[in-house]
Amino acid sequence: MKLWQKKTAVAAEIEKFTVGRDAELDMELARFDVLGSLAHIEMLESINLLTSEELTLLQAELKNIYAMIEAGEFAIEPGVEDIHSQVELELTRRVGEAGKKIHSGRSRNDQVLVDLKLYFRHQLQEVVQEVQSLFEVLQAQSDKYKYVLLPGYTHLQVAMPSSFGLWFGAYAESLVDDMQLLLAAYKITDKNPLGSAAGYGSSFPLNRQLTTDLLGFESMNYNVVYAQMGRGKTERTVATALAAVAATIARMSMDLCLYMSQNFGFITLPDHLTTGSSIMPHKKNPDVFELLRGKCNKLQALPTDISMLLINLPSGYHRDLQLLKENLFPAFREISSCLQMMTYMAEQVQVRENILADDKYKYLFSVDAVNELVLQGIPFRDAYKEVGEQIEAGTFAPPAEAMHTHEGSLGNLCNQQIAKQMQQVVAAFNFERVASAYQKLIAQA
Amino acid sequence: MKLWQKKTAVAAEIEKFTVGRDAELDMELARFDVLGSLAHIEMLESINLLTSEELTLLQAELKNIYAMIEAGEFAIEPGVEDIHSQVELELTRRVGEAGKKIHSGRSRNDQVLVDLKLYFRHQLQEVVQEVQSLFEVLQAQSDKYKYVLLPGYTHLQVAMPSSFGLWFGAYAESLVDDMQLLLAAYKITDKNPLGSAAGYGSSFPLNRQLTTDLLGFESMNYNVVYAQMGRGKTERTVATALAAVAATIARMSMDLCLYMSQNFGFITLPDHLTTGSSIMPHKKNPDVFELLRGKCNKLQALPTDISMLLINLPSGYHRDLQLLKENLFPAFREISSCLQMMTYMAEQVQVRENILADDKYKYLFSVDAVNELVLQGIPFRDAYKEVGEQIEAGTFAPPAEAMHTHEGSLGNLCNQQIAKQMQQVVAAFNFERVASAYQKLIAQA
Amino acid sequence: MKLWQKKTAVAAEIEKFTVGRDAELDMELARFDVLGSLAHIEMLESINLLTSEELTLLQAELKNIYAMIEAGEFAIEPGVEDIHSQVELELTRRVGEAGKKIHSGRSRNDQVLVDLKLYFRHQLQEVVQEVQSLFEVLQAQSDKYKYVLLPGYTHLQVAMPSSFGLWFGAYAESLVDDMQLLLAAYKITDKNPLGSAAGYGSSFPLNRQLTTDLLGFESMNYNVVYAQMGRGKTERTVATALAAVAATIARMSMDLCLYMSQNFGFITLPDHLTTGSSIMPHKKNPDVFELLRGKCNKLQALPTDISMLLINLPSGYHRDLQLLKENLFPAFREISSCLQMMTYMAEQVQVRENILADDKYKYLFSVDAVNELVLQGIPFRDAYKEVGEQIEAGTFAPPAEAMHTHEGSLGNLCNQQIAKQMQQVVAAFNFERVASAYQKLIAQA
Amino acid sequence: MKLWQKKTAVAAEIEKFTVGRDAELDMELARFDVLGSLAHIEMLESINLLTSEELTLLQAELKNIYAMIEAGEFAIEPGVEDIHSQVELELTRRVGEAGKKIHSGRSRNDQVLVDLKLYFRHQLQEVVQEVQSLFEVLQAQSDKYKYVLLPGYTHLQVAMPSSFGLWFGAYAESLVDDMQLLLAAYKITDKNPLGSAAGYGSSFPLNRQLTTDLLGFESMNYNVVYAQMGRGKTERTVATALAAVAATIARMSMDLCLYMSQNFGFITLPDHLTTGSSIMPHKKNPDVFELLRGKCNKLQALPTDISMLLINLPSGYHRDLQLLKENLFPAFREISSCLQMMTYMAEQVQVRENILADDKYKYLFSVDAVNELVLQGIPFRDAYKEVGEQIEAGTFAPPAEAMHTHEGSLGNLCNQQIAKQMQQVVAAFNFERVASAYQKLIAQA
Repeated sequence: MKLWQKKTAVAAEIEKFTVGRDAELDMELARFDVLGSLAHIEMLESINLLTSEELTLLQAELKNIYAMIEAGEFAIEPGVEDIHSQVELELTRRVGEAGKKIHSGRSRNDQVLVDLKLYFRHQLQEVVQEVQSLFEVLQAQSDKYKYVLLPGYTHLQVAMPSSFGLWFGAYAESLVDDMQLLLAAYKITDKNPLGSAAGYGSSFPLNRQLTTDLLGFESMNYNVVYAQMGRGKTERTVATALAAVAATIARMSMDLCLYMSQNFGFITLPDHLTTGSSIMPHKKNPDVFELLRGKCNKLQALPTDISMLLINLPSGYHRDLQLLKENLFPAFREISSCLQMMTYMAEQVQVRENILADDKYKYLFSVDAVNELVLQGIPFRDAYKEVGEQIEAGTFAPPAEAMHTHEGSLGNLCNQQIAKQMQQVVAAFNFERVASAYQKLIAQA
Repeated sequence: MKLWQKKTAVAAEIEKFTVGRDAELDMELARFDVLGSLAHIEMLESINLLTSEELTLLQAELKNIYAMIEAGEFAIEPGVEDIHSQVELELTRRVGEAGKKIHSGRSRNDQVLVDLKLYFRHQLQEVVQEVQSLFEVLQAQSDKYKYVLLPGYTHLQVAMPSSFGLWFGAYAESLVDDMQLLLAAYKITDKNPLGSAAGYGSSFPLNRQLTTDLLGFESMNYNVVYAQMGRGKTERTVATALAAVAATIARMSMDLCLYMSQNFGFITLPDHLTTGSSIMPHKKNPDVFELLRGKCNKLQALPTDISMLLINLPSGYHRDLQLLKENLFPAFREISSCLQMMTYMAEQVQVRENILADDKYKYLFSVDAVNELVLQGIPFRDAYKEVGEQIEAGTFAPPAEAMHTHEGSLGNLCNQQIAKQMQQVVAAFNFERVASAYQKLIAQA
Repeated sequence: MKLWQKKTAVAAEIEKFTVGRDAELDMELARFDVLGSLAHIEMLESINLLTSEELTLLQAELKNIYAMIEAGEFAIEPGVEDIHSQVELELTRRVGEAGKKIHSGRSRNDQVLVDLKLYFRHQLQEVVQEVQSLFEVLQAQSDKYKYVLLPGYTHLQVAMPSSFGLWFGAYAESLVDDMQLLLAAYKITDKNPLGSAAGYGSSFPLNRQLTTDLLGFESMNYNVVYAQMGRGKTERTVATALAAVAATIARMSMDLCLYMSQNFGFITLPDHLTTGSSIMPHKKNPDVFELLRGKCNKLQALPTDISMLLINLPSGYHRDLQLLKENLFPAFREISSCLQMMTYMAEQVQVRENILADDKYKYLFSVDAVNELVLQGIPFRDAYKEVGEQIEAGTFAPPAEAMHTHEGSLGNLCNQQIAKQMQQVVAAFNFERVASAYQKLIAQA
Repeated sequence: MKLWQKKTAVAAEIEKFTVGRDAELDMELARFDVLGSLAHIEMLESINLLTSEELTLLQAELKNIYAMIEAGEFAIEPGVEDIHSQVELELTRRVGEAGKKIHSGRSRNDQVLVDLKLYFRHQLQEVVQEVQSLFEVLQAQSDKYKYVLLPGYTHLQVAMPSSFGLWFGAYAESLVDDMQLLLAAYKITDKNPLGSAAGYGSSFPLNRQLTTDLLGFESMNYNVVYAQMGRGKTERTVATALAAVAATIARMSMDLCLYMSQNFGFITLPDHLTTGSSIMPHKKNPDVFELLRGKCNKLQALPTDISMLLINLPSGYHRDLQLLKENLFPAFREISSCLQMMTYMAEQVQVRENILADDKYKYLFSVDAVNELVLQGIPFRDAYKEVGEQIEAGTFAPPAEAMHTHEGSLGNLCNQQIAKQMQQVVAAFNFERVASAYQKLIAQA
């Protein structure tokens, strides 16, 4: 059953090719399709395209379908093309003629658009919450291991003293900046495309501000041609934000893989979190970090994958856009899985004490030694030369300990200030607006 | 002259390979290197690493150097590695010993980082202003050609009535969303990394809040390890924002190339804005739009280019990062050039009237016809079937004209609301803070 | 059951995260895992690590397992990590102790490597055959519509006379060049990595030339460190070759989408191969071509996806490499599906006659007109000027018909020469060697 | 002066935007533009579009221009659009009217196409030769350090014994496979597009086989529509081949950066090949390897950059294609520079002896220990378990030394066989054909 099915049957092979993985992927959209329809019909009644009796009837049954979906009892039947057809079919079975009327003033295009926007908005909220959880664990580890020193590297060469406090804290702060991209993606997503129909609007006197408010959108995609352009553009922006988070996890994983190598030996994992080898009995491999790295590197390719679909397509809907679901829907599951796994693993990491005791790290303190000379009044370039000559002559002796005090240094991590920045950016999402709109929409229904 | 040059000479070929295009690209950073130093020395004096006499002397000469740069009279001398060395060399020539002291508490790494942040912040502001100019022209054209109808396409098939008002207005609204990514990039850029030294902080009691305020940064990159991680991450985010703007221009250019084809014939250009053919005397080619499309498609590859450099690099500085300049610096020039050219061309485009008179567009109004039946009380699916049968039988007659009234439709473009959204997002950049900080910094100097 | 499982249990969530989609994807490798083991044990017997009785027993049971796989009766049991474990488990159930011995002189790493190489080699052969089928259809259509003229475009502007003969034939010839990349990928794939163990070889006196011959490889990856590096590199090269084929299909699909637009109207499709619209009764959308375009554009992103996983990984195996299966395995199904669908659709396309009768195409012949003057002895630049002036004055009259005779022109398509080039490149794959090796390997077993 | 310049002047700003960097980049094409013209005019004379006197005159002057180019005395004058115009202008100055005639039967499009093909063919030959030089150095180093052992890693964990012989040799063998992609790119490049005119052929009775032979092409792009499609496709394929070589260099550089870290300490470089730090006097940074890595990672992004320009462009020339020069021309210089630098550096690397004496490497030999038990008749799984228990109990003692003997293992590197494979693939390029054709073409001229 396809809405556009006319007298001529579409060949089975064509159908399979065109329907693709929609039946599977569309289940993610089910709840949001019902929410979109609840808003649409309330608006239709307000402009007299539905009677209030029809509205009441449709609301009741859409609410029932929503409950089925929540309960996991709703599925796309064989032969039904997508979730939108399935919901409409189910509704029509229950209410008859009135079920057909809900499609007035709406095209499949803007129906999908609004479903996707609601879905992405929901998923972004989940990602934001998972990023916060990881952030909290990283900050806690930073505080906990504040005084455990590490060598800091530049050019992969031993450079200056660092600490696990700095290292964990750096990745926490990285997530604050990643949140800016999540916020940009959320802002772009949080605009209502419903009412744009097939991308050119409708001759019905729709009230788009009403559906915007009912669905808790911050605003609308005004221009109907632009609303349609949002398909693909929204996906690309969301993917960009996920890629930013992924880049943070991937880099942290790369560090951890190095740190677990016997050549660094900075951290260990409990045995049950490592894997072995089929031929080497001594191996304890950091597979989880390698897979976090790999999965997050793949996620960083996602914006390009999406761009490759969109480049040079003229404006207006093209069927190619359907394929974007295959790119982005699994990415939400992947980033969630990676965020949760890194949150778990970051708690399990065991850091090694006294790393700097090893002789190869003794030059770590050479800059501090230069600085001590400078504080004694020797110009920097001369102090630098003197310590350099000590090192070449083998007479260099490091200071007793690192005493860095400025903002963000190993003696003054500023984790609280960073936490405050995180709170500020998270507050800007205003998730409450959405929650309260949905509550009202379902309650009314 | 290289700051790190020791007794052993570095082979000339190695130097050429490692210095690369820095001498050329670094000139972009000159002004910002001086500004960064002005802030740094004021801070050094506040913690007694410079005397107030030294500060006064250094400020005066840095101000002179700044004036030389503004006047285009400053250049990197042969044999000098980069802009940072050149500024320090020039300063030392002028003030002697005190010139050497300005490097206290700072590494080349955070010096470059802060220069880049100041430069990117400046360039982003320019891009924002150019985007606004294009936005205004597009909105003006949308208003001007509000009533000139166009066919709207889905699947590249003639679908529903559209208009030049909608078409121009859509690209204007697209720029509003692109601005969200520019804002995210700006927010990430607008944090002070100075004081992070080589990525592990300093044993000097630096006052990083002071340099943050002096340079007009909104905040700082607190964690020094994270501050260093910002290299590459900032570039990738900025590139992502430029790519978003580029995607809008590229898609608009693709539409325009199609619209200029004889097979569409929706627009023309004055002869002096087209080019001809070496063998076909009748050709008037839309080269400018093709090049806008191509250049903007290239810009969309930029985030991937940058990711390719960064993927799997462990934390800490790596020399690879120097190459990011080659990617991003020319991109600013390119996006500016494209924005200016599209602004100019969008004003020159001549739209054709009465396009819809052609017989092939008569089914454009089929949905409006369906809707008329629905407004007469016929269920949508039945109305759809009836009009469909008229079309198959060849008896379909379109309504007289398109009368769309809802928000964002061809009869109600909502350009003012869209302009208001643009104003709001631009206001969030808070460019005034930077301007007033710089004014103070230069005045003091 | 995992081969490397030691006393400590790996937490269930970690297992799920690390095993990923292997159980599903690995079924593709089942046949090849058995073939690899057949070769390996024959070699082990030759160096006295198996007795000839053990060999006979193992061969018989591996052959039975191979038959089960061919019959679709083999599956990975719940709790078994991957296909390699499942085959070994099944074998050990059947033959006891001897089953454990087949892992001598081999690591999971080279076992997977050889399975993948055999699988890719097989898939590449399938792709080559499907490319040939499409090639033949395109050449047949080129011959069939040799005399049906089309406008040729440059800059999307009407330029010079073309034909469906040229258009179909061009995409056929494109596939010849794509075959060069398939051949390069095949050559790189067709080298035996077995015997490289975990990437550093084995202290057993393996006979790698023997397994190379038994498995029908052209040669071996000699250096064991390089053999391991082949993981990822092989995938990237294969992906590059698939992307080349995809680019040809995608571009052809873009042309076809344009040609089906009412603004071109060069082709039509039978109704049952188009789809309709949920709100526009007149629509006949080229969804299949749009999806071919979209799917093939996604395939063009594949090499980048793979590079993103590999960039900056040091040599030696990393678990990230496991994720390559998720990229490449589905790509084989996708390219096959696209090749088959395009082959089908290219046969169904209905071309329109007399396209050039439309007035907008009259300048198509301007170059031919210039050339006529040149053949009369007028210098080209002067002839060009004269015809240009005729066009500006509106007095230009086109020649009666296009008479192009040189190689590859519309009057002389050279399809036979192109077909010969295709045969030559296909012959270079030497698929017979593989077929005969497998036949022998299974027969012996 | 532009060939297509008509009565109306093109605005200066438009000209700047459209001409872009052609004046700079086109100089690379100068020699090849003359060679293409020499072949074209000889063919024109053979079909009576030039007299034999005109031919003689034109050949003489083109030969003079060729000599000027070789001597570095040829430049594009201000106001001249590109190299093709400059050559024609110079020729017309020298021979008058006849100079105008050389454009008969050719368009700017196929003139550029053939120039690009000749240029790419030449550049690929250079790359092949530089790859061979690096190959030879790597093989020599592999032979030289055959017995210097290294730890081999999997998952970045110490795994099994390796050697510098294996490590250098692996990268040599990697280049053999990269050569397959260079060969595919060369084969696709080495087909003559001349005679395709603007992509739709010519009404002149051109003899394309003649120009194919004169220019030493292996074959021609027969179909004229396909010949034009080669623009972009050739570039993408060439870029793919360069990216393959770059991937090998980048990975080798990553290894070397790790190996130079104090935490590995496997290699050192002479001081004059490292760089220092502006604040850390003890630093000896591997900047050259980092830049090799970075530059080669950037090159790996090149195929995507090119795809981004090409995706979804319909067939036929588009001006966007001009921008491909900016991507690919500098890439040739970059890969050459990287190949030469790696060849130099690979010779300078100083390897450390006795690396395995360190206690952290003692488990390297655990697999060899397992294998010894197996050779004594113990089943692999039991031997694996026994050694595993020794390791857990701390009683494991490694065998005296690694004795691996099979093909490609550390005792049997097979460098000669690998060298033979390299010779075979290089022979397939058949560079002699080109050299001999050019010799003849210039001699005749």
